[in-house]
Amino acid sequence: MTALAIEQCGFGMERVGVCAPRGFQASGMACGIRKEKKDLALLFSCRPAAAAAVFTTNVVKAAPLQVTARHLQDGYLQAVVINSGNANACTGAQGLTDAQCMADIAAHHLGLSADAIGVASTGVIGVLLPMERIANGLPDAALALSTDGGGDAAEAIMTTDTVRKTAIAQLEVGGQLVTIGSMAKGSGMIHPNMATMLAFITTDAAISPPALQAALARANAETFNMITVDGDTSTNDMALVLANGEARNRPIEKGTPDFEVFTGALTDVCRQLARQIAADGEGATCLLTVQVVGALDVTQARLAARTVAGSSLVKTAVFGADANWGRIMAALGRSGAQFDPENVRLWIGDVAVYAYGCGVDYDEEQVTRLLQEPEVKIDIDLGAGDAPATAWGCDLSYEYVRINGSYRT
Amino acid sequence: MTALAIEQCGFGMERVGVCAPRGFQASGMACGIRKEKKDLALLFSCRPAAAAAVFTTNVVKAAPLQVTARHLQDGYLQAVVINSGNANACTGAQGLTDAQCMADIAAHHLGLSADAIGVASTGVIGVLLPMERIANGLPDAALALSTDGGGDAAEAIMTTDTVRKTAIAQLEVGGQLVTIGSMAKGSGMIHPNMATMLAFITTDAAISPPALQAALARANAETFNMITVDGDTSTNDMALVLANGEARNRPIEKGTPDFEVFTGALTDVCRQLARQIAADGEGATCLLTVQVVGALDVTQARLAARTVAGSSLVKTAVFGADANWGRIMAALGRSGAQFDPENVRLWIGDVAVYAYGCGVDYDEEQVTRLLQEPEVKIDIDLGAGDAPATAWGCDLSYEYVRINGSYRT
Repeated sequence: MTALAIEQCGFGMERVGVCAPRGFQASGMACGIRKEKKDLALLFSCRPAAAAAVFTTNVVKAAPLQVTARHLQDGYLQAVVINSGNANACTGAQGLTDAQCMADIAAHHLGLSADAIGVASTGVIGVLLPMERIANGLPDAALALSTDGGGDAAEAIMTTDTVRKTAIAQLEVGGQLVTIGSMAKGSGMIHPNMATMLAFITTDAAISPPALQAALARANAETFNMITVDGDTSTNDMALVLANGEARNRPIEKGTPDFEVFTGALTDVCRQLARQIAADGEGATCLLTVQVVGALDVTQARLAARTVAGSSLVKTAVFGADANWGRIMAALGRSGAQFDPENVRLWIGDVAVYAYGCGVDYDEEQVTRLLQEPEVKIDIDLGAGDAPATAWGCDLSYEYVRINGSYRT
Repeated sequence: MTALAIEQCGFGMERVGVCAPRGFQASGMACGIRKEKKDLALLFSCRPAAAAAVFTTNVVKAAPLQVTARHLQDGYLQAVVINSGNANACTGAQGLTDAQCMADIAAHHLGLSADAIGVASTGVIGVLLPMERIANGLPDAALALSTDGGGDAAEAIMTTDTVRKTAIAQLEVGGQLVTIGSMAKGSGMIHPNMATMLAFITTDAAISPPALQAALARANAETFNMITVDGDTSTNDMALVLANGEARNRPIEKGTPDFEVFTGALTDVCRQLARQIAADGEGATCLLTVQVVGALDVTQARLAARTVAGSSLVKTAVFGADANWGRIMAALGRSGAQFDPENVRLWIGDVAVYAYGCGVDYDEEQVTRLLQEPEVKIDIDLGAGDAPATAWGCDLSYEYVRINGSYRT
């Protein structure tokens, strides 16, 4: 009863992203919100699925989040409609009407009631949705639904993302093979404070809505909440899981070994997505992985790891392949984690650069080479306790400035 | 008994920075820490001066701060020695010895006891001070002390600063003219969390150490603590005031009108320095001034103003002259300030861009022009209460990335 490595898996693994589990179809197409790019995705379960979600903690919440939260109240959804190119945030009463309307139109074409539909949007803030284009696109999106549509859907939810992001895991529950599939988007406005991007996770597991919510909350805390690209949290963040029970496993209950295995596999999927998002951060040339050990507790470990991964000065130093470890110490010092600098050790890659109060002699060329790898690792022992945490980010490059200096133009 | 406008002032205004008040001398010279640049400054009062300071809240505190805090315990200092090019931070026991040694050598050449000397350092973290160069330089720095040395001293404390920063104010206390002079450095690793840079303020006012500390704490909260360049707080931040009493005014006591006027003038000086620091932020092409009104309380007003001024996405949009006001709303929403988006209004310059839940039609060309001014103003009414605050920052440019990708090389 452990999560299976992907190589061992049979059913479903040839299907992409959200279509990997039994009973899910998806589609992605262009309806004209973005210029000549896919911008409308549909996700459909063959029957009502237990649903759970986490949303942005931003006070300014986009209209689709409000609609989705309302439709989630009974614990079930059967489909999700998503557009990119427009966030439908800061759009007032009309924005709410439009988000509800997206659900209504999708429900009509799928033969469902509107409250079975989740809605998500991502893109520019403050512009009304071009509802006519969405209304014209949705019939085609519904017709295009298929078990082969996971890739198209993952592509249609991209904004400044340069690659589509999907992840899959499988596990056994009581002798039944359970599959978890997913897709995500996220590249800028990424910071750990609830979901931090859009992620849609599907599974054929049989699991109750409360157990699913508990599993997602745990997975989220150590994955999506541990990535940072630029310190800004979005108005549209959402991670949504649908579990349709098609695997016909014995229902997964909280507090059981099944629950632990399922949560582990879900966390694995979320971690894969989180790493892909951080690595594809706007302008990123590398994935930055910051591992902290020796913190007083997990909260402090997470604070320390996220602060270092999010420091503009650390990120520019990594971009410049400059082993300026003083900036790591400065970031740790303002993180809110408690420690004594005299007990701290730092490594870049596997090379010790600071120990117990002062710098360590190291081979500058070797560290420069390590800082030029596609994944840069910073390891920190705070020397204050036993708690660990890992955060993911990326470097800060000229390209980040270029992308964000002209996002709308 | 109000603070005088600079134009009305007589004595001292021809002297630069810290030398403006009576009884202060300064010098700045090159001792070889930086390449062909001034890097050693001395500040000297003709007699022991009441002294007050605020220090970084970073857990990792540089050695000179520890020495200065110790020497401040009796409430008096008579001189300050400052080097740039090396922060003497994360340098262990040797770093502390070196910082103490700087005080000892300066004391020797000035004929003072070491505990009358404040010490400050700024520059790269984690490298031991070249003490021989400092020891060789200090006799010359002591010989060079003069009332004309304020400019040289301001230049010698610069690191990535592109301009030297000084500010002066005058006021009357009981018929006596009181002058406040100052110098500061700061360009990167700037974030509101205590002093956020180095600032040295001199005054000929007669004021007790506790009253001086109270005045500095108030001035600091709404000036130095309200600037942000990159979200990183330094290990070396310090704002230090020396008051030598040479103006022979009736002593300024807490809770008096004199105290209010003095604190107002001190705040004015600190605000001038704060604006200069933000405008000279690493890679900045403009000063970004964010004014919040209508917050529930001052704490929330400050949170909101600082979060907007510090948002990477707002800063890149300003750099790109892109009126992407959705990012301002997103930053407000994660700031921790409480408000209802339906009650908020936003202006860029004096042009309304968002009001009461959604965007406002505005002239895009006009706003683009306003975003290209040397000072860009964002005004926010949170519509939640009566409290205001102002924060200062700058845009985020390619040049910031260039500077910080190769700081040590």
